[in-house]
Amino acid sequence: MDPEVEDIRVAVSTVIFSLRTPRAGDAPAVVLPLVKRTRDPFEGLWALPGGWLGACEGLDAAASRTLGETTGLAPSYLEQLYAFGAVDRSPTRVVSIVYWALLRPEEVSDVENVGWFDAADLPRLAFDHNEIVEYALWRLRNKVGYSRIAHGLLADEFTLAELREVYEAILDRKLDPANFRRQVDTSATLIPTDRFRTGSHRPARLYRYNRDVELADRGPLSRSPETSVR
Amino acid sequence: MDPEVEDIRVAVSTVIFSLRTPRAGDAPAVVLPLVKRTRDPFEGLWALPGGWLGACEGLDAAASRTLGETTGLAPSYLEQLYAFGAVDRSPTRVVSIVYWALLRPEEVSDVENVGWFDAADLPRLAFDHNEIVEYALWRLRNKVGYSRIAHGLLADEFTLAELREVYEAILDRKLDPANFRRQVDTSATLIPTDRFRTGSHRPARLYRYNRDVELADRGPLSRSPETSVR
Repeated sequence: MDPEVEDIRVAVSTVIFSLRTPRAGDAPAVVLPLVKRTRDPFEGLWALPGGWLGACEGLDAAASRTLGETTGLAPSYLEQLYAFGAVDRSPTRVVSIVYWALLRPEEVSDVENVGWFDAADLPRLAFDHNEIVEYALWRLRNKVGYSRIAHGLLADEFTLAELREVYEAILDRKLDPANFRRQVDTSATLIPTDRFRTGSHRPARLYRYNRDVELADRGPLSRSPETSVR
Repeated sequence: MDPEVEDIRVAVSTVIFSLRTPRAGDAPAVVLPLVKRTRDPFEGLWALPGGWLGACEGLDAAASRTLGETTGLAPSYLEQLYAFGAVDRSPTRVVSIVYWALLRPEEVSDVENVGWFDAADLPRLAFDHNEIVEYALWRLRNKVGYSRIAHGLLADEFTLAELREVYEAILDRKLDPANFRRQVDTSATLIPTDRFRTGSHRPARLYRYNRDVELADRGPLSRSPETSVR
């Protein structure tokens, strides 16, 4: 075997997307947690949460562990996003297996040394982490169109306006409320409840997702212990 | 840094899908190339083509290189599929970044030590390669529904019956010809030509894919030199 192989190390990183509403009444924005680096390389820059893969742990386990250690966050489900391995992405040779997850706003807690940033307005990050976030956002935008993925950012019950705001935040554009309602009505993904959201506006019906539709079907991988939800 | 990290090595493997028609008139089957292992572990078993990641090459480059070295195959486009890193998938600790590609039947050539196997009828493979193929097949089945991916298995011009046979081979079930024609007609992905396939049956119109639709959109990654087509 080529001895050079020994010089390549494996890390895991995680992109966690959530929504944050700056002020009551504002539209929500897609946000993600970053950790400030306390040593070289890129000391002082913000980076995705992560760490080294342990010799005796699977990739999914390493993603959960390093995310917990750096941010205290524990999403119920982490999905593998992509492996980044460009030769020049770090001063030493590191292949990073990147995971991603969605967190509902109420699952987000503030932790020291962790900053939540607007995904559309990031500073220069360490390594190739700006590129990684850009790719994760692209995948999120694609996925929201054909799956229940917006559910990962919402409470169990929500109004159509709240669901539309999630789509608007992810797609970064306004959607026509009437068209949006028609599209949702013709899909089988939402189930109307008998409950209403009351407040300053007229009461709005609450909906929930049809649980018969898989949130994120990963096919054969979901049966493997390596990739099971913790 | 944890010294254990040094004990993890990175490999690349590739799943290449093509179609093979056992006898003229038969329905085509999805096939893939495997390489017989000539040393431990798993000496004598068939395995996916692949090899170690070089210290100075990107992941995409390593996938292309090792595929060429082991099989002589050179698909124009390799897509990263998934990183497999279960602790027990190999006697030593190996994380494999797996790529996949589709090859048209005329691009397939026979090479010594390479066997083409029916994807639905594989022997016991080395490592976790049976699981990897199962996952790749699942992704192929999912992807064929919402992209032009079947194009990667067909010549530039094809009849609707030939396209339907590709879908049938991938999905492993018969499709109703009239329904299939209707679905294709309502999508904007195919363009009819003025040419016809003649032979033992009545002449059938040839179609080509609408090139305005991306074959496989990978978003921001397609702009990165690390992941560019060779």
